[in-house]
Amino acid sequence: MSDEWLQTAIGGATPDTISVRGRNLADELMGRVTFTELAFLLVQGRVPSAAETRLLDAVLVSLADHGLTPTVLAARMTLTGAPESLQGAVAAGLLGAGSVFLGVVEDTARFLTPILDGDVAAAVAAERAAGRRIPGLGHPLHKDGDPRTPRLYAIAREGGIEGPYLRTLLLVADEHRRQSGRTLPINGAGVAGAALADLGFDPRVVRGFALLARTAGLVGHLAEERERPLGMRLYLEVERRGGHGAGA
Amino acid sequence: MSDEWLQTAIGGATPDTISVRGRNLADELMGRVTFTELAFLLVQGRVPSAAETRLLDAVLVSLADHGLTPTVLAARMTLTGAPESLQGAVAAGLLGAGSVFLGVVEDTARFLTPILDGDVAAAVAAERAAGRRIPGLGHPLHKDGDPRTPRLYAIAREGGIEGPYLRTLLLVADEHRRQSGRTLPINGAGVAGAALADLGFDPRVVRGFALLARTAGLVGHLAEERERPLGMRLYLEVERRGGHGAGA
Amino acid sequence: MSDEWLQTAIGGATPDTISVRGRNLADELMGRVTFTELAFLLVQGRVPSAAETRLLDAVLVSLADHGLTPTVLAARMTLTGAPESLQGAVAAGLLGAGSVFLGVVEDTARFLTPILDGDVAAAVAAERAAGRRIPGLGHPLHKDGDPRTPRLYAIAREGGIEGPYLRTLLLVADEHRRQSGRTLPINGAGVAGAALADLGFDPRVVRGFALLARTAGLVGHLAEERERPLGMRLYLEVERRGGHGAGA
Amino acid sequence: MSDEWLQTAIGGATPDTISVRGRNLADELMGRVTFTELAFLLVQGRVPSAAETRLLDAVLVSLADHGLTPTVLAARMTLTGAPESLQGAVAAGLLGAGSVFLGVVEDTARFLTPILDGDVAAAVAAERAAGRRIPGLGHPLHKDGDPRTPRLYAIAREGGIEGPYLRTLLLVADEHRRQSGRTLPINGAGVAGAALADLGFDPRVVRGFALLARTAGLVGHLAEERERPLGMRLYLEVERRGGHGAGA
Repeated sequence: MSDEWLQTAIGGATPDTISVRGRNLADELMGRVTFTELAFLLVQGRVPSAAETRLLDAVLVSLADHGLTPTVLAARMTLTGAPESLQGAVAAGLLGAGSVFLGVVEDTARFLTPILDGDVAAAVAAERAAGRRIPGLGHPLHKDGDPRTPRLYAIAREGGIEGPYLRTLLLVADEHRRQSGRTLPINGAGVAGAALADLGFDPRVVRGFALLARTAGLVGHLAEERERPLGMRLYLEVERRGGHGAGA
Repeated sequence: MSDEWLQTAIGGATPDTISVRGRNLADELMGRVTFTELAFLLVQGRVPSAAETRLLDAVLVSLADHGLTPTVLAARMTLTGAPESLQGAVAAGLLGAGSVFLGVVEDTARFLTPILDGDVAAAVAAERAAGRRIPGLGHPLHKDGDPRTPRLYAIAREGGIEGPYLRTLLLVADEHRRQSGRTLPINGAGVAGAALADLGFDPRVVRGFALLARTAGLVGHLAEERERPLGMRLYLEVERRGGHGAGA
Repeated sequence: MSDEWLQTAIGGATPDTISVRGRNLADELMGRVTFTELAFLLVQGRVPSAAETRLLDAVLVSLADHGLTPTVLAARMTLTGAPESLQGAVAAGLLGAGSVFLGVVEDTARFLTPILDGDVAAAVAAERAAGRRIPGLGHPLHKDGDPRTPRLYAIAREGGIEGPYLRTLLLVADEHRRQSGRTLPINGAGVAGAALADLGFDPRVVRGFALLARTAGLVGHLAEERERPLGMRLYLEVERRGGHGAGA
Repeated sequence: MSDEWLQTAIGGATPDTISVRGRNLADELMGRVTFTELAFLLVQGRVPSAAETRLLDAVLVSLADHGLTPTVLAARMTLTGAPESLQGAVAAGLLGAGSVFLGVVEDTARFLTPILDGDVAAAVAAERAAGRRIPGLGHPLHKDGDPRTPRLYAIAREGGIEGPYLRTLLLVADEHRRQSGRTLPINGAGVAGAALADLGFDPRVVRGFALLARTAGLVGHLAEERERPLGMRLYLEVERRGGHGAGA
């Protein structure tokens, strides 16, 4: 007897077995599915096709943090103060993955949902009239084109799984150019959001995959921080240049 | 001209290209390496072999959270109060990945490091004399054997990459049995820690891969929580059974 | 010489002195101002009057978490897994202080700002027409009145500092009753938000004081959790009742 | 009927009343106790005396973050990426309050506990022989004396509540000087830890008050960050000086 509302379809365990999404973890999953396939399975309840896996891998690879972004700096600074708690540093890094940076992944998927079969021109015009930016368009550095964008479209096409989100995002970029007379390239976060939605993920969940990708980037940066720490030195320089002493 | 101490080997970007560990992200990595290979590359600076990738995938698959563990419940409860911040719920879930649960991954790797070529019997005796548990041995539920353990050993052997950490962990379990007269199986977190160390990861970093695996599990649970929320109901039952009203 | 943009007005230190908001910490603040006065000073740059301090103290006292709310349960569960990191458990508890619970403090202040000298009836009508709840009105438990509300109004009046936010919130409640024919009492979070705004805090910052109050509640709960842990037991019951084994 | 293990002594609510530690929140606490007194009450179950309140206020005032410390920078960077989630930025700031900075508060209380009536000289000698630093002694900036230390001792003495922790910490500093021939002043975090322990707080909980103090400092810094942001600019300078472009 069990309480239905306390049941989860994600997984469970008995003394002998562990199951994930109804599959035997040791026999059916370990050594047989990749981590990327598992992440897909955990959310959607089915193992993705080879083409879907390749696209999801490419999305995750494209979203892992690379440079010393604000979230990476926050994670490194947190490790400076609490080197005993790697989970705290990773958590601090994820907490900055909000509306300004990674939010675009979700915003793009949400923006596209109601216009997949609808009036792209009207939607773009409405955003412009309201003075809002179109989610997924433009990048502060990659002004002439984000190198991740054509690559992700190519991978989706090679797998025959370019879907309505990816297609509509192209229409949105075209329409924006037509209405504004300005070319704003589709950015990597936007195309990632569209690809995740085409892969079947609810727009309310796509940010989770951006966080997963970001976690790998943070682990890389924190491993480097353990070897070549910059947190304390950056702090000391900030204090010095601001005219303060170090007052921990 | 640049300040060397502010350089990172993890990655960077110019207007035209994004590089990760010296490779062109769009051309050399997206569509060519899996997310698991990228995570390895980010930390170690090289792409793993096929056997290494399969073992790392299996480790990550084995460590993703399945049941309604305390960290999953914390994440779901956090989403109950702040549904607008998925990153906050994931972060809350990771914060519980400390010494009691996921710490074993790191503890096992650290415990094995000094005895890889050394005196296993003396190390086990010292822990026992100090009244400490041997990291990596025993599990509250899987008392007769954690199903993940033999599977991970088999995958390592199939790839020809069972290394000194995995081998020494077997010796530790044997030695513990000899000294105590009691059989404590090697648990899944312990074998994961040994495998990660054999894959070349610094024991101070292996917890990062446990966190990465856990993030996938948390995303799965939070996607389910959006569809079938249990956080609010669990709270209301706790309040009722504790004799309080709901007083948010 | 220093870089102006790296200067902070909050505080600094030299080998001999520590200053906070231009005051000598040891000589002018320690032993002379309360923690509540310091919190006010840190944000507004001046020491509050006695009446302001009493009102701010009452707001903070009213907002500290009392029962086993979702955020408290998340914090306790986090301590279960990571007892070595009290800061992680407190952080997990704060992360749930989002739109559902503590967001009301900020939402109320934001809602009132444009109608302080304006058309309350139109603003209430607009929210109702849009099917939105009026921030600050109604409580799931205190249906006939939140006991904190009249007390906070009384304290503000006794100090002669009932301001436009508190007054307008009363008008909003009246107007809602007139338009809907239903009485929704002003809740404690709403009146706290109005009081904080009347105390001169920017609506974008008032949530910070809710977080400060919540931190005190979390410290109390986590101190109790160390003595009388419920996290592990709650987890085990959830697993059992959901039909799973314990599979950490 | 209720489950005893799900009861909390911290507080609860009925439709009519809210109680905290057995007291009526609206009638007995709001307007009658300060936030500092409430924080004491929440943990210890009694309202502190006037002298205890003054000392606890001074401890909290002394520990609020002032300068642009690593934890403050982490919080500000987090707000840069997620301005919609003030709780995330505060949480990120608290996560760095680990062993390197705020840990001293707890470490000092723990170190003193077994030697309150014991052999200070032997304890100091043992730490020195093991090559460990004595908790609570020395400060990277305040080399000739932390200005908070004599002030906190004076406040404790004025209130007649200098207790065994504070007294023993003085003996420890003297003994260290005698054994090493070097004068290391008692730092502000150490004296805060001793004072909190003398106030009756369990050493395992004193870090919670450091976190509470830190939260006030973080709210001050985040309020300033909203007005005069430095997070994005610091990030851009780090990217530029490291030789990277901005690649969010």
